[in-house]
Amino acid sequence: MGFEYLTNVPLEQAREDYIALLQQNGFAGQTETIPVQEAYGRMTAKAVYAKINAPHYAASAMDGVALRARDSFGATETTPITLRPEQFVVVDTGDPIPENCDAVIMVEDIVKNDDGSITIHAAAAPWQHIRQIGEDVCAGEMVLPGFMEVTPAAIGAMIAGGVLTLEVIRRPVVGIIPTGDEIIPPCADPKPGDILEFNSSIFSAMLQDWGACPKTYPIVPDKFEQIREMVEKAADECDMVILNAGSSAGREDFSTAVIREIGQVLYHGIAIKPGKPAILGCRGAKPILGVPGYPVSGILVIEEFLRPLVDRWLGRESEAESSTRAVLTRPVVSGLKYREYVRVRMGYVGDKLMAAPLPRGSGVVSSFMKADGMLEVPQGTEGYQSGEEVRVRLLNPKRRLKNTLVVIGSHDPLLDELADLIHTDDHSLFVSSAHVGSMGGIMAVRRGEAHAAGIHLLDTETGEYNRSYIKKYFPHGGVYLVRCVGRQQGLMLRKGNPLHIDRFADIAKDGVRYVNRQKGSGTRILMDYLCQRDGVDPAAVYGYDREEITHNSVAVQIASGSADAGMGIYSAAKLYDLDFLPVCVEEYDLLIPDTAWGSPMVRQLIATLKSAAFAARITAMGGYTLDRPGEIIDVL
Amino acid sequence: MGFEYLTNVPLEQAREDYIALLQQNGFAGQTETIPVQEAYGRMTAKAVYAKINAPHYAASAMDGVALRARDSFGATETTPITLRPEQFVVVDTGDPIPENCDAVIMVEDIVKNDDGSITIHAAAAPWQHIRQIGEDVCAGEMVLPGFMEVTPAAIGAMIAGGVLTLEVIRRPVVGIIPTGDEIIPPCADPKPGDILEFNSSIFSAMLQDWGACPKTYPIVPDKFEQIREMVEKAADECDMVILNAGSSAGREDFSTAVIREIGQVLYHGIAIKPGKPAILGCRGAKPILGVPGYPVSGILVIEEFLRPLVDRWLGRESEAESSTRAVLTRPVVSGLKYREYVRVRMGYVGDKLMAAPLPRGSGVVSSFMKADGMLEVPQGTEGYQSGEEVRVRLLNPKRRLKNTLVVIGSHDPLLDELADLIHTDDHSLFVSSAHVGSMGGIMAVRRGEAHAAGIHLLDTETGEYNRSYIKKYFPHGGVYLVRCVGRQQGLMLRKGNPLHIDRFADIAKDGVRYVNRQKGSGTRILMDYLCQRDGVDPAAVYGYDREEITHNSVAVQIASGSADAGMGIYSAAKLYDLDFLPVCVEEYDLLIPDTAWGSPMVRQLIATLKSAAFAARITAMGGYTLDRPGEIIDVL
Repeated sequence: MGFEYLTNVPLEQAREDYIALLQQNGFAGQTETIPVQEAYGRMTAKAVYAKINAPHYAASAMDGVALRARDSFGATETTPITLRPEQFVVVDTGDPIPENCDAVIMVEDIVKNDDGSITIHAAAAPWQHIRQIGEDVCAGEMVLPGFMEVTPAAIGAMIAGGVLTLEVIRRPVVGIIPTGDEIIPPCADPKPGDILEFNSSIFSAMLQDWGACPKTYPIVPDKFEQIREMVEKAADECDMVILNAGSSAGREDFSTAVIREIGQVLYHGIAIKPGKPAILGCRGAKPILGVPGYPVSGILVIEEFLRPLVDRWLGRESEAESSTRAVLTRPVVSGLKYREYVRVRMGYVGDKLMAAPLPRGSGVVSSFMKADGMLEVPQGTEGYQSGEEVRVRLLNPKRRLKNTLVVIGSHDPLLDELADLIHTDDHSLFVSSAHVGSMGGIMAVRRGEAHAAGIHLLDTETGEYNRSYIKKYFPHGGVYLVRCVGRQQGLMLRKGNPLHIDRFADIAKDGVRYVNRQKGSGTRILMDYLCQRDGVDPAAVYGYDREEITHNSVAVQIASGSADAGMGIYSAAKLYDLDFLPVCVEEYDLLIPDTAWGSPMVRQLIATLKSAAFAARITAMGGYTLDRPGEIIDVL
Repeated sequence: MGFEYLTNVPLEQAREDYIALLQQNGFAGQTETIPVQEAYGRMTAKAVYAKINAPHYAASAMDGVALRARDSFGATETTPITLRPEQFVVVDTGDPIPENCDAVIMVEDIVKNDDGSITIHAAAAPWQHIRQIGEDVCAGEMVLPGFMEVTPAAIGAMIAGGVLTLEVIRRPVVGIIPTGDEIIPPCADPKPGDILEFNSSIFSAMLQDWGACPKTYPIVPDKFEQIREMVEKAADECDMVILNAGSSAGREDFSTAVIREIGQVLYHGIAIKPGKPAILGCRGAKPILGVPGYPVSGILVIEEFLRPLVDRWLGRESEAESSTRAVLTRPVVSGLKYREYVRVRMGYVGDKLMAAPLPRGSGVVSSFMKADGMLEVPQGTEGYQSGEEVRVRLLNPKRRLKNTLVVIGSHDPLLDELADLIHTDDHSLFVSSAHVGSMGGIMAVRRGEAHAAGIHLLDTETGEYNRSYIKKYFPHGGVYLVRCVGRQQGLMLRKGNPLHIDRFADIAKDGVRYVNRQKGSGTRILMDYLCQRDGVDPAAVYGYDREEITHNSVAVQIASGSADAGMGIYSAAKLYDLDFLPVCVEEYDLLIPDTAWGSPMVRQLIATLKSAAFAARITAMGGYTLDRPGEIIDVL
């Protein structure tokens, strides 16, 4: 306790100093000699010279006969020349040109006579239809300079030139050491407190992508001696070492001490978020990188510090970052002290490229998976406003973003099923959905930030769904309301209903822990309506302010015992095997702006809504009714 | 003999029909279940759902103490509350929240007392600083839809969700069968008539790049039965088969017959060049592709016909072709009957992106290696003119083209050494050189198509090199002439000089076979000057019209015995161990336009010319003199 990070070094300075230190210590790529057939994608360590000519003999370039050109001189259409069998040799394409021959006449241009002679009607120019020696590659010539990536054609050219092995940059071996008493190998039944060790799997995949060889060591408990031994072993066996976890300020963190004991620590603490507890250390020329335990922090730290080292080792230019300008859909607030990395989902709505910030928790690895881009808020900047144009580093190609259906609004698991059906049917189309509640969906469509929004908004005056909201928020039209599903809302309750919650008002009973949905969600509006209707004081509901943003996450809190009741749909209760107190069937529809209506993504969405495959999936989930899904609802 | 291709089907039609036939026969990707850790880059076969929540327990998000939020209600700066040891539990980040606790207070916000109690100065909101169960992934939720490529973060999210194995699309196994009596495995000492089998190595690398598994079979001789057996075996063991060579019209071609016997042939003969003898065949749902023996043809045929099948199998969108407009530096003439593929070297000179056609021989695999782009001349088009703007498919990224020094002019092997030194020193810079002779270099610089040109042009009036040409072709200046090397020109002769060529005029002796350089090259100009000076009649020189475009390729013809003499530089004679009759030392300089002068590539070029590394290489090659290389020559 009371531990403080030693430094808060800006990213660029930290990286430059780190590389400079390592280079001063002798950091450099090493080479190995491998068979040329295995060299695809590898980097040449030095210039490669051909050993033989290709072709290595003068070869016929045609099917025909080889001869001495001189013997054909004078032959014309009117003065043909006949050649005796000893004056020519029949050759196929690729055959060597016989001694003393220096031309080929094509089979089409000769007349065969019964006595074995041939007649020709045109003279052959010396060396016609002959592939000269060295036409492709000359012995002794440079086939490839050093530090060039070996392409398929280069493999062919090298073999043609008699090069059977070549010196390439060895792929650096990067040791990954997971540490922590609480860390266990991946499994499907972890106990409370266990943390599944998946960082090494993520890092391994990243390292493979960069052309390095990952080597993962067994998990080491939080014991100084054991960590030191493992780091030494890895530093002996590998070219670079990642020491995972133990770089933050918890009571069991030995990383800095270990690295300091066997080598040196350049910086502990970088001005980035997430990732600030990173440790830049080394033993001689071997980098030892202390990486925070949270996966998102870890990914960012090895991306920013290890990738440039791998590139340098391999003698490769660092890949150009592809970035673009995009419009933020929500404000991003950031601290002045750090450069902050915010993952964003992206999509084109009309000509506008939208960037929607994803959850920023550094433990939320799924947000990295869903990210199309990365927004960097520079150190010294407080953030950006909603609607502001920002520069975003692209993680997915623009073409994909142009084919992405952007769904922003109320959450329902059926959106995932729609996404799967749409993409499976047409692999070029993608669906990106963000859960901001029904009202959020309406606003997103109004601002031109979504192709579709799931909404289920009860008009408490009329008992009708959605229509009156459309009339209010789109008084001049410009949107379609499309039937999706009817769905059963109710109270999700712990299995067996131990607290005897038999009617809505029971959520205010003493001892009942409620879990709510976020403001602006249709389900929250329903909840508040029910409170009002049944005279329940929100202040009396323990957990009224505890918000989750999906039906599933509400259900999960109840299933795991940290809450007793929450409002949600039947399919979520069924998925988590909860009791369910039905409240009403609501209309969950899709709001689609005119401007998106004709797009391939929306056409595919409508077709999918009408499909038997969608009906089958929805039916299996339970709690839904289908009444002509995909049809346009008359709003007036 | 007399065989005719059955068809001349346009590419698109052939491909569509082929895919349709295969799909009708049941062609489709197959799946396999693999550990999630090995799934990087693979394609999900169906939607993946989480099995457990992540986190799977409520965890402290901070180092601090866990407590019941209620116990803290009322605490303020002025009315602190003290908690007894049994009212709180010390927790580290990641620790499970103890039973009955529902909030965490950060270590920074508590005061520890000597009796073990703590004092707090603010109330805790329920669930503050607690990572809720399922914050990252909820059990039962879709983690990834089907047909999505597995990213590093997705691996993490799947493991976090308890997914330990998953169903992915199996990589298709593609059998490669090399055939031909003359084909031998790669070696460094082939005999005349032997053809090195490197196509399978090229194809293997391409297939790896596309995500398929290549499987190369042993070379099969030109025997119908043996080929049939091998194709049947491969069709049994693989998902797709490439039958290499034997698809053209030579006398030993059994491919069509074999494929017809064990399956069917859809088309034999496609309207593309190179590649027209391709065979589109199958056995049921398994494609069997007959591929021409020349490597360039083979590459194009499997790119156009096999790659779309691999993409379809994998359930992947075909990659968008990146194309651009570029200016042709030389005319391209093409037949009306075929779509022709012309490989081009590319580079930016100023803002102009130039495309220089490379040798079109389908045996010249090195041209594929050197290509930056592919120009397709559509069927029905006769070609393009020099200076015409054409659309080119990019094989290298534009960024690389922007950093490529374009050298067009006279050939000298030292250009390869310069390229290697420049790129090794700065991996972001590339050099592309084309050999069009000194006059070609001058013209290229005049047209703004080159950053530099190697020239060695003798003014036969004055005996001076280069200056007078610069004055003539650049009367208004606008170019720099930069010292490069002095180099020894002479007659390269067969080892031991068996024909006793003792002076220049001896090249016209009876029985001497000369090999010449192309028109416009400085060496050709020198040759013609010497003929005139010494009264040699070119018509009397056997082989005067036999042209090669580099010093090395002239030397190779002499070394291999197909010529007796040729003009060239000492370093080439030395490389091929030839006799050498010196004629003169000439000035080989570099011509650089004003407009390119300040560019990073040219700056690096000048620095390299002045370097010790360059001097060392040049000295090792022999026959060069160095006199202040890199200095600007005063032309006036």
